[in-house]
Amino acid sequence: MPGTKKVEGTLGIIAGRGSLPSVIARAAMASEIPIHLVAIRGETSEEIERFPHTWIQWGEIGKLLAALKDNTCTDLVIIGGVNRPDFDNVRLDLGAIKTLPFLLSLAKGGDDHVLSRVVRFFEEKGYHIHGAGQVLPELLAGEGKLSTKAPSAEDKGDIATGFEVVRALGRHDIGQAAVVARGRVLAVEAAEGTDAMLQRCAELRKSGRARGALTGVLVKAPKPGQEERIDMPTIGPETMRLAAAAGLSGLAVAAGQVLMAQRSETIAAANANKLFLIGERWDADADPVSGE
Amino acid sequence: MPGTKKVEGTLGIIAGRGSLPSVIARAAMASEIPIHLVAIRGETSEEIERFPHTWIQWGEIGKLLAALKDNTCTDLVIIGGVNRPDFDNVRLDLGAIKTLPFLLSLAKGGDDHVLSRVVRFFEEKGYHIHGAGQVLPELLAGEGKLSTKAPSAEDKGDIATGFEVVRALGRHDIGQAAVVARGRVLAVEAAEGTDAMLQRCAELRKSGRARGALTGVLVKAPKPGQEERIDMPTIGPETMRLAAAAGLSGLAVAAGQVLMAQRSETIAAANANKLFLIGERWDADADPVSGE
Repeated sequence: MPGTKKVEGTLGIIAGRGSLPSVIARAAMASEIPIHLVAIRGETSEEIERFPHTWIQWGEIGKLLAALKDNTCTDLVIIGGVNRPDFDNVRLDLGAIKTLPFLLSLAKGGDDHVLSRVVRFFEEKGYHIHGAGQVLPELLAGEGKLSTKAPSAEDKGDIATGFEVVRALGRHDIGQAAVVARGRVLAVEAAEGTDAMLQRCAELRKSGRARGALTGVLVKAPKPGQEERIDMPTIGPETMRLAAAAGLSGLAVAAGQVLMAQRSETIAAANANKLFLIGERWDADADPVSGE
Repeated sequence: MPGTKKVEGTLGIIAGRGSLPSVIARAAMASEIPIHLVAIRGETSEEIERFPHTWIQWGEIGKLLAALKDNTCTDLVIIGGVNRPDFDNVRLDLGAIKTLPFLLSLAKGGDDHVLSRVVRFFEEKGYHIHGAGQVLPELLAGEGKLSTKAPSAEDKGDIATGFEVVRALGRHDIGQAAVVARGRVLAVEAAEGTDAMLQRCAELRKSGRARGALTGVLVKAPKPGQEERIDMPTIGPETMRLAAAAGLSGLAVAAGQVLMAQRSETIAAANANKLFLIGERWDADADPVSGE
């Protein structure tokens, strides 16, 4: 495996919401990488209990660091979104109180600002932080047509517009995705996430504010300078169901830069919903003028 | 009145959804401008029946043009959003069939594309098209502090970021508004409209994905090249209620470029909800580099 050599000891997986932590734990074990998950009460799915794990509460930084140390973790993957903690419900242990200035610094700024600080925090403790796709590159969406269906000429125009919009947005640390239908930008993702944006498109379609059916594309790509190690854009089977419900024709993602952990289920869901799914070469930091 | 001299004969008001058409009809009558409203079944509020009016169905272009001609309209205001018509439910009269290539051309492209074509269509028939604010400048949000509350230093930073985001978006014919809280862009408006975007921010706040209360600003400004005569950004009392429900600190709008037809009610709603409301100088077409 190209990725396995990167992990020296045990791979710590700090597990957020959804099924991704389990998918990655399973993939790591299949690649014979020893793992230990740290799961957050109220965030992480109990599915992860089938793997070696430690539960913590929000704010138990001391317990988190002890779990990583006791299990000889040298490398870390931080995966699955978390809700921004409600600071009223955080249990600060001794380890947390020691890192209070760090915690307070998280309360301000865009997503990338917060995530960069989280990465630096663990790096300063001596851990190597990896994106799940770096350790397990088979989990990334590749280049070219992944579905049975291919984009039409009109879809290709919408894809180009979508990538331009994501590029323009990224300069302001906004979202990772946009929906374009027949040249019109229907929706732009900011803090709500891709699923909520797709649900909004389905509502627009129903209310008559977006015309037609089976037109429009979702484009998803990292922001320029995005901390891809812990905030990689992600698609899965649910993305396909929501895209179909929004009446879209298909999806285009930045090849090699979007996590598609449930690969076969995701492609099957694209095909079952008559969506195209393609990976396109994408350089988030490219000059926007020459990129257009 | 500075605006009244612009209207030579009767002011035709093509009336979309909401209370704006009635507000403008009332303001025009107060300025002694003769008016005739054309109202669209299923879109326009029946409130407008207190003014001289003609009802049409979507697609009755012939009836629309006849109503304008029979009532000696020389000038037009097109006001209040409409749903993009579901082309299955449009009744095409003879006048519509004559303009079929025009109608079909509306089915493609961004908002501005559609609106520019609508303006050109009426201009080619000899009408002068005005923005409501051009005929009735007292309906525009002015420069400076309009509310009792003033923005804090943090709010001012969020306002600057919001205007930058709206500028970046406008280049792609996207929306007119964004919400920024403590440097983080929470939401960007595309096809869903400002009200829906504010409701989304309220949900983000509830779900813990946007922190804090009474922080964050809504910034609203026209897109560069926006057809302001028929698609001017608009705020009203409901905007204030939704902004307060989203936990925002206040609103900043482009001075002289945002319609605030219910002026006293809007300012009263801002004050009642402890929001600041300010108008800032804004040139949508300014160089983004020097503008930052």
